Amino acid sequence: MAMPKSASSNIVIRVEMEKDAAAFGRIATAIGNWGGDIVAIDVSGGGKAVTVRDLTVNIVDAHSKDMIVQVLESLPGVRVLQVSDQTFLMHLGGKIEVTPKIVIKTRDDLSRVYTPGVANVCMAIRENPDSAHKLTIKRNTVAVVSDGSAVLGLGNIGPLAAMPVMEGKAMLFKQLAGVDAFPICLDTQDTEEIIATIKRIAPAFGGINLEDISSPRCFEIEQRLIEELDIPVFHDDQHGTAVVLLAGLINAVKIVGKRLEDCKVVLCGVGAAGIACTKILQAAGVTRIVGVDREGAIVRGRDYAHAAWRWYAEHTNPDMESGSLSDVLEGADIFIGVSGPGVLKREDLQRMAADPIVFAMANPTPEISPEEAEGLVRVMATGRSDYPNQINNVLCFPGLFRGVLDCRASRVTESMKLAAARAIASVVSDEELSELYIIPGVFNPHVAERVKEAVIQAAYASGVARRRERG
Amino acid sequence: MAMPKSASSNIVIRVEMEKDAAAFGRIATAIGNWGGDIVAIDVSGGGKAVTVRDLTVNIVDAHSKDMIVQVLESLPGVRVLQVSDQTFLMHLGGKIEVTPKIVIKTRDDLSRVYTPGVANVCMAIRENPDSAHKLTIKRNTVAVVSDGSAVLGLGNIGPLAAMPVMEGKAMLFKQLAGVDAFPICLDTQDTEEIIATIKRIAPAFGGINLEDISSPRCFEIEQRLIEELDIPVFHDDQHGTAVVLLAGLINAVKIVGKRLEDCKVVLCGVGAAGIACTKILQAAGVTRIVGVDREGAIVRGRDYAHAAWRWYAEHTNPDMESGSLSDVLEGADIFIGVSGPGVLKREDLQRMAADPIVFAMANPTPEISPEEAEGLVRVMATGRSDYPNQINNVLCFPGLFRGVLDCRASRVTESMKLAAARAIASVVSDEELSELYIIPGVFNPHVAERVKEAVIQAAYASGVARRRERG
Repeated sequence: MAMPKSASSNIVIRVEMEKDAAAFGRIATAIGNWGGDIVAIDVSGGGKAVTVRDLTVNIVDAHSKDMIVQVLESLPGVRVLQVSDQTFLMHLGGKIEVTPKIVIKTRDDLSRVYTPGVANVCMAIRENPDSAHKLTIKRNTVAVVSDGSAVLGLGNIGPLAAMPVMEGKAMLFKQLAGVDAFPICLDTQDTEEIIATIKRIAPAFGGINLEDISSPRCFEIEQRLIEELDIPVFHDDQHGTAVVLLAGLINAVKIVGKRLEDCKVVLCGVGAAGIACTKILQAAGVTRIVGVDREGAIVRGRDYAHAAWRWYAEHTNPDMESGSLSDVLEGADIFIGVSGPGVLKREDLQRMAADPIVFAMANPTPEISPEEAEGLVRVMATGRSDYPNQINNVLCFPGLFRGVLDCRASRVTESMKLAAARAIASVVSDEELSELYIIPGVFNPHVAERVKEAVIQAAYASGVARRRERG
Repeated sequence: MAMPKSASSNIVIRVEMEKDAAAFGRIATAIGNWGGDIVAIDVSGGGKAVTVRDLTVNIVDAHSKDMIVQVLESLPGVRVLQVSDQTFLMHLGGKIEVTPKIVIKTRDDLSRVYTPGVANVCMAIRENPDSAHKLTIKRNTVAVVSDGSAVLGLGNIGPLAAMPVMEGKAMLFKQLAGVDAFPICLDTQDTEEIIATIKRIAPAFGGINLEDISSPRCFEIEQRLIEELDIPVFHDDQHGTAVVLLAGLINAVKIVGKRLEDCKVVLCGVGAAGIACTKILQAAGVTRIVGVDREGAIVRGRDYAHAAWRWYAEHTNPDMESGSLSDVLEGADIFIGVSGPGVLKREDLQRMAADPIVFAMANPTPEISPEEAEGLVRVMATGRSDYPNQINNVLCFPGLFRGVLDCRASRVTESMKLAAARAIASVVSDEELSELYIIPGVFNPHVAERVKEAVIQAAYASGVARRRERG
């Protein structure tokens, strides 16, 4: 995965220098020669014969970092102990903390928030368990749960290695929507064990956000938890992606002057995200959806190993189109890619209907790059932040959970997801709407607020909201 | 449980007033008549015919609160909708939050803390799992785990009702020692399920603080987790109590001029805390300990149902004393109570050796009240904040976990507990030491720091520290 150049523009090099042999001037010169700029020096240890220094260096690119390290290593009496870049430094000690909302200053405070006063609050909850939603962190807290089996584009890297992603997610929950989120990385990948564990830790939480759990286990885990818990459970990789995709498509079809319901959609990559995208499009009224996976279009009547694919064959592709991706792209209005890099060619785009819409969301390398698609596509979106129209789940989950917690919804219904998608789309006004701006940016301050409002309204309409609106 | 008077000195009364019938003057007069002082009025709702107001009222005691509510209810056109006291208000929405350590301001920040930059950190942990202790919240985070089976003096009130206590504990962890702690209240009381669940959620945590789990399950849960996890597991109700008790005794014997090792100790209440207190006293060199439970002194050779009592019979009471509490108190230097209210009488105190030391730690009502013991006891300690010499676990757990996390200890050894006890005792200087001041107060700023230092030293000596000290 390519790291944006700027993400390592500031590095810290820890060097051990032999006092007799090493000359700091030669170090400084070597760094300068490769475009590095020493902005700080800290002596971090050493003894009689050696000193250890941390050199903070601005560098121009990753190559210059490698060259500087290499040259330093070759200097007499110099040993490079460690090189940290800004990304690693930002992760030191973790990215989130658990903080008290009130400072306990006096014995009086202590007796209210802890023993003996807290006993009255405990007993109030004991008498009326519903009041836990009011008197504990359950009111505002979501568990971000992963088993580390399908992390980002990295695959099955396990629970410890998944932690930085879950912590990042928790940061976004709080910053964008004021939701407290705590990462729970599970040391098991067994479906039943995951379900049992989440059910047992549920009392502290007002919602469960499932994350980076591989398919097909993610379907059963989510479904069972929805049935067996009374708080909302949401697998973001499925439904977050689907919601933001739909938001982008709502605006994309406006540009080309088509009705979404009339469009022929070809979806490449029938995994967890692909199936969720299909379902939300169906809920939005789209009927002509053809799913393509490694063996070609999924068609009714064939024998599929996965239950998910059997469902897909029965519920999509009404005209029973078959063949390769290229074959079924004939006359398609919309291409949705949730598969892998480079599966879409220029020739394929030419088979599509007029004004093709292409959402190539494979990350980090899309199904076709915007450069390659140039001139053949009317509206293009990707999952990347360095192209226009980024389809980013961050647009959905903070506002969605904010809404869910505020009205104490027991679950997330299909109509709440549709409402969230429409809310995201609505942030781009008709005046602003263009081929390069169909979806708001991740820092747009209106998104979470609009999504929240829409989700609450839909929750009331769905009958799953459990909290009376304030007078 | 009696609530300290001050804990409800400020209440909020929500009243609905019919515009035609109710007169605010009569409300104000009624409140004033019962010693209440209206300090704020907020209109919080209403319609054409009624208004809803929140009256913040300073009151003198709980009785005046009840009388005010009763009189208001009797006024024409007035209805009391809700009465909140400060304790409940402080719990609204929970007492802790999860906050990002850095604000994500730019796309650049986002790419470092979240995708794509985070992938490099994930892969670094994948390659070297140990680095999770450095690059994630595992570095500084403790799970406060309870099944709600033995909460405070309240008993088996379940996981939801236990939450306010665990949140309070998390507040103290952070405020007193900078430790991030997150409450995990389990929706199961099955020993194996509790063990399995904690093992599965362990990746996010650097330590496990077990809390309010009933005996005898707490022994097996703690023991098994210590064996099966590579992070420290500490059942505070057992060992926190034991550490602080020992700290108090170390100073108490100084006052009476005895050596702790020579003392005869009678311990009343052979439950989880009692057994842990016994073990730490043994580790500190005390041999003459007699445990008393409902059926009298525990003596070798008798048949006991619980494995814990069988252990106790074999390892204590070397002189095989038998009989009632009164019987075995003959000649005792120290009484330790971890049982229930009022089990100790003035006559019992008279049977003890000269200069009796009494730690009556039953909460909220001690085995004998300091008033009742007046004149017959040389040094007295209780679990209460409204008497001198409070034996409070808060003196131990924040500093202990601070130390454990700082040196990345794999477990808490007996010598680390002893070190913590001596550190707490050491905060009271010889000049300050008196019958009324054997143990520092909970807000004493030196306690956590001293405990931390002592625990780290002991961890290195025990060979369980895994982090090199900085040069």
